[in-house]
Amino acid sequence: MFISEDSEMSAEILDGKILAQQIGDSLKSEVDKLREQTGHVPTLVNIIIGDDQGSCVYANSQKKVAQYIGIDYKLATLSANISQNELSIFIEALNSDMCVNGIMLHKPVPPHIDYGVAANHVDTIKDIEGINVANIGKMILGETKITPCTPASVMEHIKSTSVDLKGKEVVIVGHSRIVGKPLSLLLLEADATVTICHVATSEAGHLIEHVSRAEILIVEKLP
Amino acid sequence: MFISEDSEMSAEILDGKILAQQIGDSLKSEVDKLREQTGHVPTLVNIIIGDDQGSCVYANSQKKVAQYIGIDYKLATLSANISQNELSIFIEALNSDMCVNGIMLHKPVPPHIDYGVAANHVDTIKDIEGINVANIGKMILGETKITPCTPASVMEHIKSTSVDLKGKEVVIVGHSRIVGKPLSLLLLEADATVTICHVATSEAGHLIEHVSRAEILIVEKLP
Repeated sequence: MFISEDSEMSAEILDGKILAQQIGDSLKSEVDKLREQTGHVPTLVNIIIGDDQGSCVYANSQKKVAQYIGIDYKLATLSANISQNELSIFIEALNSDMCVNGIMLHKPVPPHIDYGVAANHVDTIKDIEGINVANIGKMILGETKITPCTPASVMEHIKSTSVDLKGKEVVIVGHSRIVGKPLSLLLLEADATVTICHVATSEAGHLIEHVSRAEILIVEKLP
Repeated sequence: MFISEDSEMSAEILDGKILAQQIGDSLKSEVDKLREQTGHVPTLVNIIIGDDQGSCVYANSQKKVAQYIGIDYKLATLSANISQNELSIFIEALNSDMCVNGIMLHKPVPPHIDYGVAANHVDTIKDIEGINVANIGKMILGETKITPCTPASVMEHIKSTSVDLKGKEVVIVGHSRIVGKPLSLLLLEADATVTICHVATSEAGHLIEHVSRAEILIVEKLP
């Protein structure tokens, strides 16, 4: 992501690692306070179905962050043969478990499992990734409480620069369901003027003009 | 709404009344076929809470359209004193009534009723206005089945012109939750390049440049 504040197009490249460390420190301090004041330690349950290696690596990395922040990290590894209905029952048990504060369902899921159906079983207030369609819908209604991760990360990056989004010309390249579309809604909530480009913009010969006039440019992927 | 196909900006203004008549005729023919083949007559239940005159006028106009198309139109007028919980129970009874195919909850509702909470009780497959947050969320996921009325109307207008939206420069003026935001998602699904402008675009001095370069211009309201 690039942010340009003048017509010479000098750009600032934002460093995600530094920001992640700052947010981690801030969360650690919040969790410390919560534990001191109430004795409560937040619990996050991660669900992996089967033995996908990518998911396991991701889970290990999450576990380290959780330990640093001071939250309780639980990994539930379910059989690759679990049925859709059994998965729903498992998720609903976590929904009603007062000791569980957050639920994350790892991708990929086996081919016989409909990820969207499972995602919509995750209680909207425990849905840490914002995958339940009701949480997604709230983004259009301007009632966003839990945001999908990548758009949330982009917004945190912009926030870290102290740039006021109101009236800014923001151009997004990419209109996927997990980045471009939800991100455009968050930017509109902050009163940016938003243009969403993609492969058809490039094919129509308009991509360069949009990219050139952007005050903030967010590239999901180059067409 | 204006559609311009050349650089001289000659514009075509689309007539909603003619289109509405065409869609009405097409629906009447579909409903006739359904009745002949299955004996089934679709039923729409409209809920008005209290005695708002605007809602009553709207309901009368809907009733005439329903009669023309050949669907069964039922009006449920509920007491202005109904509680949120009683309203939920009423809506859920309609959800489970096999004879009811569509439900519409009229606005305004009394101040003690939370419209959003009530809207989310309407079964997603009977939610003819697309007001349930889960139906709204499907617009981001590209799984749109039921669309809010005004964006749906705009898309029908564009469809009626046979203009291919792929790669078209579409500018929307207005970023409301009921028009600009959901409409932008429908246009992106059709691979248009979409820019959403609003009052802050105007204040930043960029509105004219966007409006001037639009191949399709949709104005929700002028800032």
